[in-house]
Amino acid sequence: MAPFAATPELPCFAVIFTSRRHPESPSAPDSESSYDRTAQRMVDLASSMPGYLGIESARSPDGFGITVSYWSSEAAIAAWKSQLDHHAAQARGKSEWYEHYELRIAKVVRAYSGPEGR
Amino acid sequence: MAPFAATPELPCFAVIFTSRRHPESPSAPDSESSYDRTAQRMVDLASSMPGYLGIESARSPDGFGITVSYWSSEAAIAAWKSQLDHHAAQARGKSEWYEHYELRIAKVVRAYSGPEGR
Repeated sequence: MAPFAATPELPCFAVIFTSRRHPESPSAPDSESSYDRTAQRMVDLASSMPGYLGIESARSPDGFGITVSYWSSEAAIAAWKSQLDHHAAQARGKSEWYEHYELRIAKVVRAYSGPEGR
Repeated sequence: MAPFAATPELPCFAVIFTSRRHPESPSAPDSESSYDRTAQRMVDLASSMPGYLGIESARSPDGFGITVSYWSSEAAIAAWKSQLDHHAAQARGKSEWYEHYELRIAKVVRAYSGPEGR
């Protein structure tokens, strides 16, 4: 995926998902790739949903990550939340992958980008 | 800093700052630590500002990072933006550190955390 989401038309809505992964278990050598595969599948799936505007994601080597996805409306976010495959991935995230997470829904009111004019 | 910002009282405001660092220059061996020192100083400074509620930050090994800071009002964000030392750090970010960045101001309307009840 492209790292930067295009600055969408405002107002739009952001889902800010902050998470800490469980330390990798040596007894589950494929858990990383299973997570990565699911994460990529969720990005592909999200981008096929109505109202999807973009996604940005970063994860530090210590397992702490932030993903921000952008949507045209709160209804689009609700539809994405209840999408069947996404729902299954959420369940697996809760039971297997995430030690802790915070999820915040926010209405984006202003946006800037840079640097310009250097 | 603690990785997770405590879930603040809603509504509050989020500053979503997404950035890509320039690749490190071999001719500037101290640029990384200079950046890290400034970043930590900005976190300390932000947390001393009125209306500051918390900050979360992640950066992937490829240099793509997301920092989300939380504030009680848009006025608190405006004061932080124009704070003198922060203003100097912003200028250095534009001229030295960031290849590109996106900055979005958003009003947080809902928040959840987890996983619970596993």
